[in-house]
Amino acid sequence: MSVFDGHTADAKTPEEIEAEAALFGPLTQSVRALIESTVMTDVDPDDINRARALIDEAAALLDAKRMPGPFGVRWNTDGSRRSWGNAAVGLRNPIAPPLTVRHDDGVAWAEAEIGPAYEGPPGLVHGGIVALFLDQVLGAAADHAGVPGMTGTLTVRYRKGTRLGPIRAQAHVDRVEGVKTFAVGHIETPDGLCAEAEGIFVLPKEVRDLGEKLGRPQ
Amino acid sequence: MSVFDGHTADAKTPEEIEAEAALFGPLTQSVRALIESTVMTDVDPDDINRARALIDEAAALLDAKRMPGPFGVRWNTDGSRRSWGNAAVGLRNPIAPPLTVRHDDGVAWAEAEIGPAYEGPPGLVHGGIVALFLDQVLGAAADHAGVPGMTGTLTVRYRKGTRLGPIRAQAHVDRVEGVKTFAVGHIETPDGLCAEAEGIFVLPKEVRDLGEKLGRPQ
Repeated sequence: MSVFDGHTADAKTPEEIEAEAALFGPLTQSVRALIESTVMTDVDPDDINRARALIDEAAALLDAKRMPGPFGVRWNTDGSRRSWGNAAVGLRNPIAPPLTVRHDDGVAWAEAEIGPAYEGPPGLVHGGIVALFLDQVLGAAADHAGVPGMTGTLTVRYRKGTRLGPIRAQAHVDRVEGVKTFAVGHIETPDGLCAEAEGIFVLPKEVRDLGEKLGRPQ
Repeated sequence: MSVFDGHTADAKTPEEIEAEAALFGPLTQSVRALIESTVMTDVDPDDINRARALIDEAAALLDAKRMPGPFGVRWNTDGSRRSWGNAAVGLRNPIAPPLTVRHDDGVAWAEAEIGPAYEGPPGLVHGGIVALFLDQVLGAAADHAGVPGMTGTLTVRYRKGTRLGPIRAQAHVDRVEGVKTFAVGHIETPDGLCAEAEGIFVLPKEVRDLGEKLGRPQ
């Protein structure tokens, strides 16, 4: 599979997408809650095993029919895209908190409540999860500025532990040099600035070529 | 909460830990399968909603009693630790693939099968998830070498897309300068080298002080 498979398949109308979001959003939210319950539960073995049987039954229902490949990034008929399988922002991905990235005056930002399933050091968000959120929001800033790419280099400087709880991540494009987009950003909590990042984003040549061919923003 | 809360609480014997792992491991594995089912399912709305009701029932069972805080890192009576809530390696954390980090001759390494719930670009592991795995295995290398720390700086250079499927991550300590441990590593797939990383790990002063007080390796 190449990096742009799935970009053009399964285009849907805004109405279809709204209906799908209303169906899959609550399912995914229920699984997110279950993830946290799994990390935090302190019930007796009998209840653990009963819960597990219910979970297996739910999975069997869902597995009766699966999509043939990973979700990918799918175009909509209005030219927007949905990354519903994405591990940071995916509406259908329970691993994603999800981050909902918004854009104001060139700044991409997201706020989220980060629970115990994202822990690394005791009480703190895992350093790699901090990197995941920063990678996503930096990439979104590049994308929104019209100079998108895949991550070429990501550097994260951790200034203090990022406490579990409310976080804000934000980023903007610092500069563009040829095919490279340099984005910078940070994560903060009520404790203040926790981590800073710089990312260099580069669009793979095959995607640039496809973009020219289709006449669509990539 | 400070970074070392939970380090000393809830010490258990190897037998107790084995019994807990036999209980919570399969529960977590079932939730991991459910996460993938949630991303990939293509069943009808009725089955989606039936599955959701089962998931909510399971979560209610588990939520009848919860631990008071996040899992943290807990000591065992034999001096080892369990990071069962950890987002990359946690036995009780469905978000973790999990990575199981092993150590050979100073090299920390982990192999895992990475499914569609870790997707970023179509067909590829999310760049931030690549960073998560590298952060974890670099940190494990530092820890195992007796020079552990929290991540101070993490730099990841992406050489090519990391295809979903089997991956191997590995790292070793390159050098130690004062309180800083420099670890380097990479991720590879059957496609070859996909990403390289350098991490600088520093143990917070309060943890160093606690280690001296308790006489335990930190």
